[in-house]
Amino acid sequence: MAATTTVVDVLIIGAGPAGLALANWFRNSNITVLLVDKKPGPTPRGQAEGLKSTTNEIFASFGIGSQIAAESWRLEEIAVWGQSANGGIVREQVVMDKVEELGAIRETLLQQSRVEHHMLQNLLSHTNISIRYSTSPVSVVVDGSCTHEVAGYPVTVGLTRVKQSESEPNGTPTANGTNGHSHDTEYISAKYVVGCDGARSWLRKQLDVVLEGDLTDSVFGVVDLIPKTNFPDIRRVCYLRAATGTILLVPRNNKEVRLYIPVESGSALPDPKDLTLDRILAAAREIISPYALEAGPVSWWSAYRVGQRVGSHFSRRNERAFLVGDAVHTHSPKAGQGMNTSIQDAYNLGWKLRLVLQGHVPSNPQALLRTYESERRPVAQDLIAFDRGYLKLFSAQSAQFDTEFLRAMKFTTGLSIRYAKSCAVQLPSGVEDLGPSLLKADLIPGKRLQDFQAVYHADRIAERIHKRMHASGAFRIVVFAGDIAEPGLLAKSQSLGDFLANRESGLGRLTMPSVGDDAAAWQDVPVEVLMVHCAEREHVELLGLHEVYRPWSSDEGYDYWRVLADAESVLEGHGRVYERLELDRHQGRCAVVRPDGYVGAVVDVNDFQGLKSYFQGVGMVEAEPYQNGTSH
Amino acid sequence: MAATTTVVDVLIIGAGPAGLALANWFRNSNITVLLVDKKPGPTPRGQAEGLKSTTNEIFASFGIGSQIAAESWRLEEIAVWGQSANGGIVREQVVMDKVEELGAIRETLLQQSRVEHHMLQNLLSHTNISIRYSTSPVSVVVDGSCTHEVAGYPVTVGLTRVKQSESEPNGTPTANGTNGHSHDTEYISAKYVVGCDGARSWLRKQLDVVLEGDLTDSVFGVVDLIPKTNFPDIRRVCYLRAATGTILLVPRNNKEVRLYIPVESGSALPDPKDLTLDRILAAAREIISPYALEAGPVSWWSAYRVGQRVGSHFSRRNERAFLVGDAVHTHSPKAGQGMNTSIQDAYNLGWKLRLVLQGHVPSNPQALLRTYESERRPVAQDLIAFDRGYLKLFSAQSAQFDTEFLRAMKFTTGLSIRYAKSCAVQLPSGVEDLGPSLLKADLIPGKRLQDFQAVYHADRIAERIHKRMHASGAFRIVVFAGDIAEPGLLAKSQSLGDFLANRESGLGRLTMPSVGDDAAAWQDVPVEVLMVHCAEREHVELLGLHEVYRPWSSDEGYDYWRVLADAESVLEGHGRVYERLELDRHQGRCAVVRPDGYVGAVVDVNDFQGLKSYFQGVGMVEAEPYQNGTSH
Repeated sequence: MAATTTVVDVLIIGAGPAGLALANWFRNSNITVLLVDKKPGPTPRGQAEGLKSTTNEIFASFGIGSQIAAESWRLEEIAVWGQSANGGIVREQVVMDKVEELGAIRETLLQQSRVEHHMLQNLLSHTNISIRYSTSPVSVVVDGSCTHEVAGYPVTVGLTRVKQSESEPNGTPTANGTNGHSHDTEYISAKYVVGCDGARSWLRKQLDVVLEGDLTDSVFGVVDLIPKTNFPDIRRVCYLRAATGTILLVPRNNKEVRLYIPVESGSALPDPKDLTLDRILAAAREIISPYALEAGPVSWWSAYRVGQRVGSHFSRRNERAFLVGDAVHTHSPKAGQGMNTSIQDAYNLGWKLRLVLQGHVPSNPQALLRTYESERRPVAQDLIAFDRGYLKLFSAQSAQFDTEFLRAMKFTTGLSIRYAKSCAVQLPSGVEDLGPSLLKADLIPGKRLQDFQAVYHADRIAERIHKRMHASGAFRIVVFAGDIAEPGLLAKSQSLGDFLANRESGLGRLTMPSVGDDAAAWQDVPVEVLMVHCAEREHVELLGLHEVYRPWSSDEGYDYWRVLADAESVLEGHGRVYERLELDRHQGRCAVVRPDGYVGAVVDVNDFQGLKSYFQGVGMVEAEPYQNGTSH
Repeated sequence: MAATTTVVDVLIIGAGPAGLALANWFRNSNITVLLVDKKPGPTPRGQAEGLKSTTNEIFASFGIGSQIAAESWRLEEIAVWGQSANGGIVREQVVMDKVEELGAIRETLLQQSRVEHHMLQNLLSHTNISIRYSTSPVSVVVDGSCTHEVAGYPVTVGLTRVKQSESEPNGTPTANGTNGHSHDTEYISAKYVVGCDGARSWLRKQLDVVLEGDLTDSVFGVVDLIPKTNFPDIRRVCYLRAATGTILLVPRNNKEVRLYIPVESGSALPDPKDLTLDRILAAAREIISPYALEAGPVSWWSAYRVGQRVGSHFSRRNERAFLVGDAVHTHSPKAGQGMNTSIQDAYNLGWKLRLVLQGHVPSNPQALLRTYESERRPVAQDLIAFDRGYLKLFSAQSAQFDTEFLRAMKFTTGLSIRYAKSCAVQLPSGVEDLGPSLLKADLIPGKRLQDFQAVYHADRIAERIHKRMHASGAFRIVVFAGDIAEPGLLAKSQSLGDFLANRESGLGRLTMPSVGDDAAAWQDVPVEVLMVHCAEREHVELLGLHEVYRPWSSDEGYDYWRVLADAESVLEGHGRVYERLELDRHQGRCAVVRPDGYVGAVVDVNDFQGLKSYFQGVGMVEAEPYQNGTSH
């Protein structure tokens, strides 16, 4: 057996939504990445397809939001049907599929294969990232003596080529790839290995991570078809509650509807493999009766029994090995959370690896990497708790339905996620916990910055903040400077500008290039300063603001895209940022937004020490060299 | 010289914006199309890039609107600068780049090569359409004895391969391709030939069409650069009026700005070829002084002297040969009309050819084809009259500036275009002319249907009407049925439904498949019936409407996408269709919309004869077979 060795920074096992999202973090960097997948090529047809607003924000930050939005199907109304007195079914209510605080589309549909397509295309021009299909891991060793202070390659993974026939026909990785291979093994030396290899994860088993939880007691069928029916709400999301169970009906593109149909429940369940399409459709017809339902073209169907399980660990071996997505959590597909949570896991991990690999975290990088598990494992646990209760909501008519359903919509949108205090989430001094998580879209450390629309000061073009904060690996200090037509507030923003630009006593080493001032030098800066003011645009000249808000590069002149105004756009209305984030127009506030769009800290606009201590906490600034530094 | 003969329905010479737009009309048909272009491949870099809203509506109808919008740059504000008392320049006013009636973006920018890319990609899966680059016509003969009643191939065009070196480096077709070719000639037999071959059109010369008009008396430079400047409005569209002339400044993507700079004017003009970039930039600096202007990266520049000319004919040889776009009109690029007008010419011609070639116009097809010239030549003449006056608007400060500029914005948007009465435009009985063209966006025969947003009755998804009316070659009868929660209006819509569906005394032969009722049969129907009502959606059940508004197909069930409601969308606001089109909510109105989105006729909802006589006029319905038919 001939053996060759390849050296990469990050080895990603699995090129599904999680693996591709992770790889997207390493665009425009020198970090070398290898993705391997047992499948012979990109997934031709995926099961998942619900995209929540937070996931669409992630695509926007990768620069592929418009393309994905253009192909996606919208969901606007949800109808709830129950049993009628005469034994039929009756429409009980119709609610809008909308969460007011979002100010954006709550959910869209696009099949997984197209989502993967766009993420994959987005990698192709980046020579530091490569992908190999028909490739399977056979061994993994992590050198436990390698600390994070040493620039070594402690991970060694053996890879082998998969013969076409060894892949299962549906492209699912097989459970065990450690024996039966007669091909040459290639050894990969890596700094980190990440398992994005799905529910039957190979890496999970190698790392002795166990899934905690159970299988549920229902077998479901799922069918994508063009329906021939006189059911009047066939083009709405419908929950149909009948004597035999609750159907979920989700309209999609190409005239199709997806049906989730409970076929059997109880203790003596059939193996899902034994279910037939006819059996599933018969169960659907029974529930939808007296309306007729005939199947036009059926493009895909399947049957499954859901497991509700969470991995015991999300990272192992001194944060050299990570597990992401389905590899560490499984749950019902009905709330459309699977692909979303996998992509969001990857989005949480990617920037941390990037920052550490680029040397921006000289002080205790392992602490930052540890927050991947401490932030994402509770999310998976909450999701499964939610999953257990979700369908009960539809099991009987309830006076609290509206409130509860809105709560559920907010939850699945991701609005309730709030990461706990850590080196990457700084709470106000003396505060350990902000209390129960709120579903409000407010400006709170640990929560995702609410996506909002503002207009660029220079040209009045409407922009959404998450699209603006593209996934470059940079933190953003977003200065909500208030009404800077008021001299006092303008002066405050200028003082803050001095602090942000000062390389000695301020944060200039993070916000400005260390060498040169051309456009390329500016791209490597780990903290980008943005301003969102609420003054009348006519009363403020951009070039009158501190240079940190409109920096100069020697080859491209001023940067006109760092200052936004909370003002009416020409066509897209008014973003009402200050109102929605509950900001005082006559006070400055400052938010540190992490590279993944979560708020790291919120401080007053003149709390320079608060800003500095945040970056000391992350490990990007050492306490010593600064005159006013605290020992953190 | 070996000669082979290929037979196609339509031969298009030139694969620029006009030729590609024309070809897009023949997707999803059996009409064979050959595009040839002298260039070795798609244009790598095009000069034009302004896209007006009407052009973006065309892209939407081709199904490529979202992709083009996603790449396009927006223009939101226009600043006008004049000379100040102290010899410098001063901002006089800022206006929004907006026309209220549109309810949509007025103009966007995307470079021509990307526009061509999307139109080309849109053709690739259609095997009836083929493209050959490096191919040049050398001869054309049209058999004058061939009438439109005979299905013959009266056009013969000789083609030859162009050696790479024969193309000019910049890909512009050379003026004369008739001699100097030593390659084999291939002969193409075609029903129609269309010259989309640009300002130096080869076909125009063969057809003895002359350009009428003159060269202007100014030489301009145009530069795309990243500016390094302290000029405060560099990210707005600016008209800078100074002693030496008026600069037009247009911000674009990639941090670039396009400058149109008057370099010389008067009687003794230099040849544009003699201008240098330095000379052009010096002229710009002189105008923008006392502000500084240095050039960062320059991606493209050129110099030109504008001709303002219109072809004597747009069609020749019994409507067997046509000329489109720059081949028959040239004018200043400053109002951003070149690419728009070319695409709109092609959009006017394409559906007429398609309809005739598909046999849908048995009665006098030549009359319909003749409307291409009668509709588009006046547009080109108006455009040149506008072009002459446009820059005068900026030559001095004027109290009427706002009004005049808004008029100009409306004109360049295409809102003022109104085609005269013809076989394809039916005026109310007894009316010959509706008087001077208005810039209002109203519902008038001969004008483009104003694009509007409504929501689908079935699912509340917001839709824009021009996107809905995709370029399939079908007419639409849009029934503005009013508030059909009122029993009287519902009854009227049902009676109209009976007429529209009746194959004997009504329009059923146009609105319903002649054979079968599967989805494919429905696609070939030449008239599609749509409804836009303004009732509360909850008070109307879709399946309670006449079947013509929600027809059944045997394989896909009901069509849920023909009935729209003038209602609030979940996220995009309320389209206010009835208000904007000035429709009475308690009266039905009916518009016949041509395949190109122009209104052919407007009648009362119970004026069955008015509807029928329109299609008799076009030649799609013979007067005889109908009991109530008029001799038209």
